[in-house]
Amino acid sequence: MNMLPVREVVVTPVAFPDPPLLNSAGVHQPWALRAVIQVRTADGTTGLGETYGDAPHLSLLNRAAGALDGLDAFDLAGLRARIADAIGTVDAPDRHGLTGGSTADKTLSKVVSPFEVALLDIQGKAIGRPVHDLLGGKVRDRVPFSAYLFYKWAGHPGAEPDAWGEALDPAGIVAQARAMIDRYGFSSIKLKGGVFPPEEEIAAIRALRDAFPELPLRLDPNAAWTPSTSIKVAEQTDGLLEYLEDPTGGLAGMAEVAALAPMPLATNMCVVAFADLPEAIMRDSVQIVLADHHYWGGLRASAELAAMCRVWGLGVSMHSNSHLGISLAAMTHLAAATPNLTYAVDTHTPWQSGVDVLVEPLAITEGAAIVPDGPGLGVTLDEDALARLHENWLHTDIRERDDTAYRQRFEPDYVKRRPRW
Amino acid sequence: MNMLPVREVVVTPVAFPDPPLLNSAGVHQPWALRAVIQVRTADGTTGLGETYGDAPHLSLLNRAAGALDGLDAFDLAGLRARIADAIGTVDAPDRHGLTGGSTADKTLSKVVSPFEVALLDIQGKAIGRPVHDLLGGKVRDRVPFSAYLFYKWAGHPGAEPDAWGEALDPAGIVAQARAMIDRYGFSSIKLKGGVFPPEEEIAAIRALRDAFPELPLRLDPNAAWTPSTSIKVAEQTDGLLEYLEDPTGGLAGMAEVAALAPMPLATNMCVVAFADLPEAIMRDSVQIVLADHHYWGGLRASAELAAMCRVWGLGVSMHSNSHLGISLAAMTHLAAATPNLTYAVDTHTPWQSGVDVLVEPLAITEGAAIVPDGPGLGVTLDEDALARLHENWLHTDIRERDDTAYRQRFEPDYVKRRPRW
Repeated sequence: MNMLPVREVVVTPVAFPDPPLLNSAGVHQPWALRAVIQVRTADGTTGLGETYGDAPHLSLLNRAAGALDGLDAFDLAGLRARIADAIGTVDAPDRHGLTGGSTADKTLSKVVSPFEVALLDIQGKAIGRPVHDLLGGKVRDRVPFSAYLFYKWAGHPGAEPDAWGEALDPAGIVAQARAMIDRYGFSSIKLKGGVFPPEEEIAAIRALRDAFPELPLRLDPNAAWTPSTSIKVAEQTDGLLEYLEDPTGGLAGMAEVAALAPMPLATNMCVVAFADLPEAIMRDSVQIVLADHHYWGGLRASAELAAMCRVWGLGVSMHSNSHLGISLAAMTHLAAATPNLTYAVDTHTPWQSGVDVLVEPLAITEGAAIVPDGPGLGVTLDEDALARLHENWLHTDIRERDDTAYRQRFEPDYVKRRPRW
Repeated sequence: MNMLPVREVVVTPVAFPDPPLLNSAGVHQPWALRAVIQVRTADGTTGLGETYGDAPHLSLLNRAAGALDGLDAFDLAGLRARIADAIGTVDAPDRHGLTGGSTADKTLSKVVSPFEVALLDIQGKAIGRPVHDLLGGKVRDRVPFSAYLFYKWAGHPGAEPDAWGEALDPAGIVAQARAMIDRYGFSSIKLKGGVFPPEEEIAAIRALRDAFPELPLRLDPNAAWTPSTSIKVAEQTDGLLEYLEDPTGGLAGMAEVAALAPMPLATNMCVVAFADLPEAIMRDSVQIVLADHHYWGGLRASAELAAMCRVWGLGVSMHSNSHLGISLAAMTHLAAATPNLTYAVDTHTPWQSGVDVLVEPLAITEGAAIVPDGPGLGVTLDEDALARLHENWLHTDIRERDDTAYRQRFEPDYVKRRPRW
């Protein structure tokens, strides 16, 4: 095969409708921002990537995009080196802080990620192989995802209620779970917590347990609790939870909780980059790492993370932010090729309002996505849909995700506090 | 691309002349044993691998070979699974113990390795890409190797002296270094120790320092010393050594030495499988891991090891046993794609007597091998040479490497003792 030099890189910011989902930082804005990456090589092969669409990140993506001309699609080491040169040492943290702390290295990994996915897509298309073959081969044909429940308002203030309706108490959460499971067949359930006082969220977990006696349950308050509150909640949910996710912030606090909690702790907030692993392991802060290729540096880096988890006896699953179908496909390939991914993967797919940038997004049926075996990611961009979602972006004035400011618009006294309880 | 199902696997035991190199287990026998693996897929593509040729290993290789029919060349996860099924839980330790302890998992990794290399060779050939492209892309065009000095007899007892001649004292070692560097241009030097009392080996290191004031030096006694002897040697070689390799055995002993040694410790004996890493890191037993794809499970597993070393701040280089050109090519591709491989790699190439199974083995000039950019490993099997080396194997009665028994033939009182001093 000849070289596959990159000739064109297009970064398209998009926005798609997002329901008012509540979390410990505030509430989701009416539009979720993403960026779609298209990389084209000289032979006309196009690779796709997807990542965050916040303005500071977008600016780095564009800087990176300008540095890739002539890069061979197999040269992933060169990809990171070129992007590092292009963006320099810069730290672009998220305003919401829902994916933990930020460093220059994590920022670099975030910028590299969608381009790495796009290059793997190109590699796969060029050789006629699915991306999972480039990650060592699939070990499963179906990737299980979990139902991702949120407390939510009926609709965005001033707008009609959305199809999911309100969920502000245990009954609302159970109804949401029922609707989501009816539609997608999920066989495990995650509740995003950190919204109401812990007793109320424990009550919701109990209600879910009653309604779905067989399904594994998880609770994720996004570090809304102190260590001592976390320990109390852990004791009160003994036997109810498959794992407790990020009850409190930081490796020290998590270690304090982990030492007493009867269930394993999972995280996507205190172990968010390779540099966090040594201390996390030394302290035994977490038992399960929720990988996220969007900030770990791509699919190969996430596979390396999984290998480390295997060696140090940590469980592995996968974190999700609001996303479209390119990310879902990338996550599915990665999960398919990760032998020790032993928990159902998180996804925001049900909250996506059926909008996508793909001709035929992966479907989740019976709680799982069928692993695509076509070349590359196995998905096709819908140019018209991309244009429509880019129009959305042009017409919204949201340029950075800020769940806190949006909530404050309706509740002026609201403050983001972590821990809150 | 269509599937690339494996249709034929040939395991050929070979033997090639080996000089009487001394080490802490005894002395090299007149023939070094290797096994050459040829894997052919349905389309006629052949991939090459190379590994140990000892009888117990050979028997496992043959069992593995029989289990690969129909396996797709990209299915590396399936490769390991099939071989695990085929050989079951079995532990085949080396008699010499020069690569540390053994477990069923390490045995499995040793059996998988040459097949993985052969499948990567096939993948590369099928897509027209070098193996380093399958490992993330090369980060260097030349891979530096180190001069690997041995105390040695002039020749095997009863035979003529070989071209390298005797080296049993500092002057002999310096002369050997001079000859080897004149020929290959190495710019770092490793002395295999553990043969003479430590004072004599320290004297050899001092002589090397005087003769080659600029070149980094390493000393590897293969765990011949107690921790306290190791500490004394470390103090006496302060400022002389780039690293001290496996002065003593075991993670506890190494940690004791590491705490006081002024230079970093390297190992290929106490960290020999992923399962060793957590304790080694917890104890700070070693500062540099010498990877060896032959027992770590192949090139991708070794790349994972290198990623772990990067995260935990360990240095990485590469260990060598007597080998032929297929292994040299595999090591070169791996080293080319390993960003944090920051030390010159060990190789026994100079001791190979010019014999090989390749049409044109990689040359080491100016101390480095040029990274091959042709498809796959970029090397071609010489069928006639393979047949000749297989004839050697048929005609020798050596079926397992046993440096100790061979030395005892000439020195009946010799016993292998680790530690000896």
